[in-house]
Amino acid sequence: MKSKLINEQQGEKTFALIFETGDEAMSGLARFAKENALGASRFTAIGAFRDVILGYFDWEAKEYRKIPVREQVEVLSLIGDVALKGKEPKVHAHVVVGLSDGSTRGGHLIEGHVRPTLEVILTESPEHLCKEIDEESGLALIRI
Amino acid sequence: MKSKLINEQQGEKTFALIFETGDEAMSGLARFAKENALGASRFTAIGAFRDVILGYFDWEAKEYRKIPVREQVEVLSLIGDVALKGKEPKVHAHVVVGLSDGSTRGGHLIEGHVRPTLEVILTESPEHLCKEIDEESGLALIRI
Amino acid sequence: MKSKLINEQQGEKTFALIFETGDEAMSGLARFAKENALGASRFTAIGAFRDVILGYFDWEAKEYRKIPVREQVEVLSLIGDVALKGKEPKVHAHVVVGLSDGSTRGGHLIEGHVRPTLEVILTESPEHLCKEIDEESGLALIRI
Repeated sequence: MKSKLINEQQGEKTFALIFETGDEAMSGLARFAKENALGASRFTAIGAFRDVILGYFDWEAKEYRKIPVREQVEVLSLIGDVALKGKEPKVHAHVVVGLSDGSTRGGHLIEGHVRPTLEVILTESPEHLCKEIDEESGLALIRI
Repeated sequence: MKSKLINEQQGEKTFALIFETGDEAMSGLARFAKENALGASRFTAIGAFRDVILGYFDWEAKEYRKIPVREQVEVLSLIGDVALKGKEPKVHAHVVVGLSDGSTRGGHLIEGHVRPTLEVILTESPEHLCKEIDEESGLALIRI
Repeated sequence: MKSKLINEQQGEKTFALIFETGDEAMSGLARFAKENALGASRFTAIGAFRDVILGYFDWEAKEYRKIPVREQVEVLSLIGDVALKGKEPKVHAHVVVGLSDGSTRGGHLIEGHVRPTLEVILTESPEHLCKEIDEESGLALIRI
């Protein structure tokens, strides 16, 4: 994954993050967030995966059920944010993918391997957002 | 719902709006728009609903057909805007949700109850957008 | 299609692009990109189409398979970007649409006729993004 700063003004920065074939999206986003010490970002992306693991949060089991999609899919929408859990930036992303017949699947993005590209535009704000553990779900949620 | 201004420069403001369990998304967005006198905003969001009512605009009947989804769903993409109808800010939002098997549903967002979170990033621009009634559809549409 | 500049600061510009009944989305976006000499933009949109042609990139055939949807659909998410191929701005957009029963379809946006509106918010950055032909896929991809 390569990145380029495409705008910066008064503490707000916008980056293009371009993933190539074989790159894994969530680990690439997490690495970028850590290396750039992100504290409050949002992003959108389009592209394609050669395989992806979606998640659905099972409210009874209080954990993500994994839904693997083992085929080439279009990334129709990838929307997410970055917030701090303690000092660590955490990436949260949801995705809708398109299959060869135009039908769609979607979920929490657990893992996705890019082919041939994933084009992410990410904007980091000067004010930070922080996460805390939510007692009911056990999830780390943004609290303001 | 709680909000935090995460960036402001030369009349453009970006807010994080964080909804919690039980909050209804459309009324929360409408209240925020009114209280902050929004006149031209766009937003994206991810999170989850415990139930949601989607709408499909029936072109023959010239009204929204309601499509209720009465189960816990991931909010995969929520995209919308705010524009003025007269002096009143109007929120327009479309949503794609993900079910437990990774299949998706979507429509015009009529009503959605959050569980456990909905993370909205909204940017308000200095120049306003205005809506007028479109004679053919009967809908209030942005005209510029 | 009509456009309005709703924010400008230090080389970053944000436009609202409002399409009306009968307008074709991709050609309208391409024309706007050319007339405004866009070099690095991202956009999101919602609205509705009266018909749309989706694309799925067939990795074996190395071409887009066309998936026509010949009915009134909600545009649930339209996400895209603009980058330069040589001196020519190229629009890349993926869409998810909603049918009358709340089911969804999606793909690469090849062609979509608006009815009654498509509301696009597009932000152009001061730094440009450039495309090059990817040998494996034959597609023009952003390289940074």
